[in-house]
Amino acid sequence: MGLVVQKYGGTSVADLERIENVARRVIKEKESGNDVVVVLSAMAGETDRLINLAQQAAADPDPREYDALISTGEQVTVTLLAMMLKRLGYRARSFLGHQIKINTDRAFKKARIVKIDTRKIREELKKGAIIVVAGFQGVDEENNITTLGRGGSDTSAVALAAALKADVCEIYTDVDGVYTTDPNIYDKARRLDKISYDEMLEMARAGAKVLHPRSVELAKKFEVPVYVKSSFSDANGTLVTKEDKDMEKEVVSGVTYDRDQAKITVVNVPDRPGIAARLFTPLAEHNIMVDMIIQNASVDSLTDLTFTVSRKDVKQASILVQDAAKDIGAANVVIDDSVAKISIIGVGMVSHSGVAAKMFTTLAKEGINIEMISTSEIKISCVVKAKYTELAVMVLHDAFELEKQKS
Amino acid sequence: MGLVVQKYGGTSVADLERIENVARRVIKEKESGNDVVVVLSAMAGETDRLINLAQQAAADPDPREYDALISTGEQVTVTLLAMMLKRLGYRARSFLGHQIKINTDRAFKKARIVKIDTRKIREELKKGAIIVVAGFQGVDEENNITTLGRGGSDTSAVALAAALKADVCEIYTDVDGVYTTDPNIYDKARRLDKISYDEMLEMARAGAKVLHPRSVELAKKFEVPVYVKSSFSDANGTLVTKEDKDMEKEVVSGVTYDRDQAKITVVNVPDRPGIAARLFTPLAEHNIMVDMIIQNASVDSLTDLTFTVSRKDVKQASILVQDAAKDIGAANVVIDDSVAKISIIGVGMVSHSGVAAKMFTTLAKEGINIEMISTSEIKISCVVKAKYTELAVMVLHDAFELEKQKS
Repeated sequence: MGLVVQKYGGTSVADLERIENVARRVIKEKESGNDVVVVLSAMAGETDRLINLAQQAAADPDPREYDALISTGEQVTVTLLAMMLKRLGYRARSFLGHQIKINTDRAFKKARIVKIDTRKIREELKKGAIIVVAGFQGVDEENNITTLGRGGSDTSAVALAAALKADVCEIYTDVDGVYTTDPNIYDKARRLDKISYDEMLEMARAGAKVLHPRSVELAKKFEVPVYVKSSFSDANGTLVTKEDKDMEKEVVSGVTYDRDQAKITVVNVPDRPGIAARLFTPLAEHNIMVDMIIQNASVDSLTDLTFTVSRKDVKQASILVQDAAKDIGAANVVIDDSVAKISIIGVGMVSHSGVAAKMFTTLAKEGINIEMISTSEIKISCVVKAKYTELAVMVLHDAFELEKQKS
Repeated sequence: MGLVVQKYGGTSVADLERIENVARRVIKEKESGNDVVVVLSAMAGETDRLINLAQQAAADPDPREYDALISTGEQVTVTLLAMMLKRLGYRARSFLGHQIKINTDRAFKKARIVKIDTRKIREELKKGAIIVVAGFQGVDEENNITTLGRGGSDTSAVALAAALKADVCEIYTDVDGVYTTDPNIYDKARRLDKISYDEMLEMARAGAKVLHPRSVELAKKFEVPVYVKSSFSDANGTLVTKEDKDMEKEVVSGVTYDRDQAKITVVNVPDRPGIAARLFTPLAEHNIMVDMIIQNASVDSLTDLTFTVSRKDVKQASILVQDAAKDIGAANVVIDDSVAKISIIGVGMVSHSGVAAKMFTTLAKEGINIEMISTSEIKISCVVKAKYTELAVMVLHDAFELEKQKS
């Protein structure tokens, strides 16, 4: 007998009918002989409704009150599922963050889990109960309700699986696994049976939306095997796990894209110490995340500095950067908010040469100009004009023969 | 500087605009120099929406899950009000039942408050904060969320006022006080400036909906002065307080009616010990509340036994009673679900004779037949045909000259 943590996202619990569908899946797992801990998100749309209420109440709502407000969404779904499970004849019990407890730090709206007390869950599991835990929420030391930010319920599930030493953490969503690329963009996309934590992490960071990077980091840290599955089908899904020899055969496992990119170039920056700090400190102070940063080689002690930010931040970022540019005596600032980041990811890259060259050649053949490049051990990202997104994804998918299973 | 507990009901926090209206009232109180603790209900209609969800999830929802579900309604309003108060420049902090804590027994759906820990509230009051507490909810010893049942937020407010030794507990609702009778039935109804706990209790039990009997009992026990006021006007309201000499001048302070009544008569009951127990035990076991009970004098060792129940219970009650009647050899059971209870209430009755006679004469003059009578020290209730409700209220209001202020 094993212990399975199952997490169902907002679309899987969007209404009572879908929650009943979840109940049947949970019961099937329980009947197969496993203990089950279920983690739920709020009904699709509910968190947005609550955020909207908060923003009507105050333009910049108090974060402590904000978290206590939006955490009600998960409170509704977990109690409804527990009621259904009981009606269907099973012992079931819902737990909120403060009841378990799931202890977090005090960073409202983006809290990090510090410790999970698993005693109550273990006691109830011993009595044969199915446990239903509210995702996305915890409490700080003073019993203030906190929420974990985007992808919070995935993080709750993986953290619970780690704390309970579960055999597997299953993430149920509206897609049936991790694909070599977005099937909406290229119909040759193939579902991967397995992917390593590092690849999944890079994919998530590079724009794949199936799992939040935080939950993948946590899974990697505690070596929790994570299954990504669809709650609407019985397909096998994708296992996110430690690297193994099979994986290394795949030079590239996926192509991702991220259209939420805007490029900012500061032209003719004097090349002296402290300049980068002067440019990026104001952005950090305004919580604007900078993704790629590139600095050209210096000519006559002048250089160009280019970086990317999220499109929603570009307006505020350009004001801050223009201000800084004036200070440091740069010539001017050029904004381009119609770019996209295309990435190829694969653990096999480490031991195969020529992957980058193949990527650049493939894009060049199609006349796609590469505006920025950044690389990690298992990822190569190129910024290109946004209009080339689909084309770039398809030609790279073909070039690396991702539609074919290697073995 | 005093301490005021203010409670706002569902219609007073029905939407963001009304919550903002509440914020302004709270601030006015704070600016006048008092510490303020606010207790809120859920938005009007929200608790019903949640109950409906629960009933779709399970015909007979698990009570522990049910309470955790419906308690979210108050969680939404208190966080929204706290956000608004902060936006308007005031220190404010919301507290849920488990955060304070408000300890209750384990009777889900109708829990009773056992103890309120006031430390956190006092700490925050010292820092100048306005405290916003979720009404209707508490936690049992194991940190399970409980709710207090109908009128629960009134009870929360009075209990907090008692625990904090507040100077006054103000109950804001959609009417501006306690009236001599329902103004919707008789336009001569007069708002009372003051009423005693006992009168208010009898009025609430006899059908007046302005305060729940439980909250009045609690107010009486801890001598909490309660002000019933409208959140939509600045009218004075009604003070519910200890009996004083002024009150005794009013022989009758109010006329109430309760149309939620059904009369059950068991005919020719053998008059021997144990019969009443056999009749009423099954009703108690099914949580059916019996209001008035009358047993005629025995003739030939046979008697008629008549009692009233809530109309919603009459169907189930008649089945249980018919069953019992057969057992004990009664002739038959007669049901009448078109009756109403008309009551007159007043502490002055104790020292004035002829009040009952005046009531009976007044009704007789209008040809209204009295089917049942019950009395307490400060109340006389008559059951009459439901169609006479309005007429009975009006003629009694006139007979006791309730439109006139006595002094």
